[in-house]
Amino acid sequence: MNSFTYYAPTKVVFGLGAEAQAGQLCRDFGATKVLVHFGGQHAVRSGLIDRICASLDEAGLPHVELGGVVPNPRLSLVHKGLELAKAEGVDFILAVGGGSVIDSSKSIAYGLACGGDPWDFNIGIRKPTGCAPIGVVLTIAAAGSEMSNSCVITNDETGVKKGVNSDYSRAKFAIMNPELTVSLPWYQTASGCVDIMMHTMERYFTPKQTMQLTDELAEGLLRTVFDNAIILHEDPENIDARAEIMWASSLAHNGLTGCGNGGDDFASHALEHELSAAYDVTHGAGLAAIWPSWARYVMDGCLDRFVLFAMNVIGIDPDEYENLEEAAEAGIEAMEDFYHEIEMPINLHELGLELTDDDLAAMAHQCAALKGGKFGVAKVLTEQDALAIYRMANE
Amino acid sequence: MNSFTYYAPTKVVFGLGAEAQAGQLCRDFGATKVLVHFGGQHAVRSGLIDRICASLDEAGLPHVELGGVVPNPRLSLVHKGLELAKAEGVDFILAVGGGSVIDSSKSIAYGLACGGDPWDFNIGIRKPTGCAPIGVVLTIAAAGSEMSNSCVITNDETGVKKGVNSDYSRAKFAIMNPELTVSLPWYQTASGCVDIMMHTMERYFTPKQTMQLTDELAEGLLRTVFDNAIILHEDPENIDARAEIMWASSLAHNGLTGCGNGGDDFASHALEHELSAAYDVTHGAGLAAIWPSWARYVMDGCLDRFVLFAMNVIGIDPDEYENLEEAAEAGIEAMEDFYHEIEMPINLHELGLELTDDDLAAMAHQCAALKGGKFGVAKVLTEQDALAIYRMANE
Repeated sequence: MNSFTYYAPTKVVFGLGAEAQAGQLCRDFGATKVLVHFGGQHAVRSGLIDRICASLDEAGLPHVELGGVVPNPRLSLVHKGLELAKAEGVDFILAVGGGSVIDSSKSIAYGLACGGDPWDFNIGIRKPTGCAPIGVVLTIAAAGSEMSNSCVITNDETGVKKGVNSDYSRAKFAIMNPELTVSLPWYQTASGCVDIMMHTMERYFTPKQTMQLTDELAEGLLRTVFDNAIILHEDPENIDARAEIMWASSLAHNGLTGCGNGGDDFASHALEHELSAAYDVTHGAGLAAIWPSWARYVMDGCLDRFVLFAMNVIGIDPDEYENLEEAAEAGIEAMEDFYHEIEMPINLHELGLELTDDDLAAMAHQCAALKGGKFGVAKVLTEQDALAIYRMANE
Repeated sequence: MNSFTYYAPTKVVFGLGAEAQAGQLCRDFGATKVLVHFGGQHAVRSGLIDRICASLDEAGLPHVELGGVVPNPRLSLVHKGLELAKAEGVDFILAVGGGSVIDSSKSIAYGLACGGDPWDFNIGIRKPTGCAPIGVVLTIAAAGSEMSNSCVITNDETGVKKGVNSDYSRAKFAIMNPELTVSLPWYQTASGCVDIMMHTMERYFTPKQTMQLTDELAEGLLRTVFDNAIILHEDPENIDARAEIMWASSLAHNGLTGCGNGGDDFASHALEHELSAAYDVTHGAGLAAIWPSWARYVMDGCLDRFVLFAMNVIGIDPDEYENLEEAAEAGIEAMEDFYHEIEMPINLHELGLELTDDDLAAMAHQCAALKGGKFGVAKVLTEQDALAIYRMANE
């Protein structure tokens, strides 16, 4: 039995039209002036920002808007948002979007509460001592940032992408209306499904003792995303399937599926962050391009978990294979088939990158350096290991 | 797709010796003076109360102690605790025990925050407008009150047992050390396992649309408790199995396993509360004695859910049965076998009660009256239905 802490205080309000409750929820959690932070113009053109502002008006809450967050959200916009929030006397940030908007909001909120440059927290030269309250209206099911303690920002001056985790940044509330995700391009929907599964897979593949209950929850969540991603590929407007994916996005990364696992892996995320930082690829697609290579490279470190995954998530009967290695490999191949079925890449070429060995070496160096030399638990990885995995993914 | 709200803000600190963190956690959540509230003398004799008081001392927090909470916790002790808390200037209640101690603490905390008699909230003549903060050191895995919004009290003057639900009463933190449950008599451990499963079963049996993700989580939790109750029956000191049951107790009743189910049933709980109130039986054992009769009575109202339960929780293959009714019945019989295997009753006689039809009619009348005439969703029940179920359980 491993000790653990589980803390997921975010109030989830889930359902069609739930964004109409934004104003009241901001009030309930103490807002007096709100920064409505969002990404592209779709949120404006669709009328969503207007509906949210109307809800804030109805709750008697003054507000100011700032759009323009891009995927792999940039520190420069965080600085702009922080200046605006200070100048306007904002005390609550309402993120309307997916992981990038939420993380940009968290970074602004850190800056409001702690002063100075919030990038300090991402690079670890200061620790957060607080965070202004944030709320979320979720429009992309993927990052799980709406319930997680994570905040990943890209410094657009240095090209470094790095996260900071702290419970201070847990959202006060998250409004989830699955209908808001229907207009996403398929590539974004599919990338989200990969990211969601990966947040739980990063907790699942471990050589340490786990809990039956956590394994059951993790496997059930993975089966749900697997099944509903395939449903959505056929029928992207299926609201029930959108609802399954959206709720899974939060539970996959709020800590629930790792309780008692002795520590998360998150090596695939570390390897992918270099891809996103250097080549601005979509995070989930980048994860799909990396994971099969990572899996084959680390498999011997926790073979029984790969077999369990093949059995309980994919539905493979190990008795039908020569040995456990082959059963585990069949599970990895089934994931590759799944990625292809939902039009996701399984290597760097399919991701659209043509990289030299020097490119790979630069990413491996940066990846290991940002992690202090070693990372991962399924197998502890070094710069050399990272390079070997990048090379496998580039074959 | 059904709308839902999910709000489980309790910080869980899980592990051996975790009670040493009680003082720091009380401080983190703003305590300046703590009422340590507990049940019998075992908590004192085992040294647990001393360890907790030492932790409070270390955190510089003055404290006052009040023991004496009994199962089916009594309003008279709530009143005594409320007087003590007011007289001593307490602003935080630390519940050291199981559901009875936690609910007694919640009731005192309602009284501190709202003034007047907290029983008003249980009988619905006032609504809570707040609740003083409470923390929990859990010593019995059963009620799930450590993460739930529920507070069930028995008025020892009138014999009425009734609950009030409000998010104000969600615990700030819950310390869970599975080792603290090892000394429980088997009957308490087994009753706890029944209660835990029932909190999720009360959410599972519904004729409404459900979510695959919620069903997966519910079924995984039920399998976990089923398996580990049997392990503990053979080996009550198995800490890993104690850990599974303890964590399941919280997740079974914090709302997670009912998200999107369109409304919980809780008819078995309503029927059992009358048994507890009138005959002071152990709540979980009372649920085991009621559930098979309830299940057979309501089965036709949501047959597909009973078949799913038989398949996914018990492991029955419906194709091996003549029809769906027989497969569903096989699932109920398997639960009866499970109750017997862990020495739980499956009817009122085995519970140790010899009741007349007048006794049953009095309970049915009170049960329906407290629920405003109708209750349950698997099948909407009236006083007549309640009597019919009590009679089945009394055959």
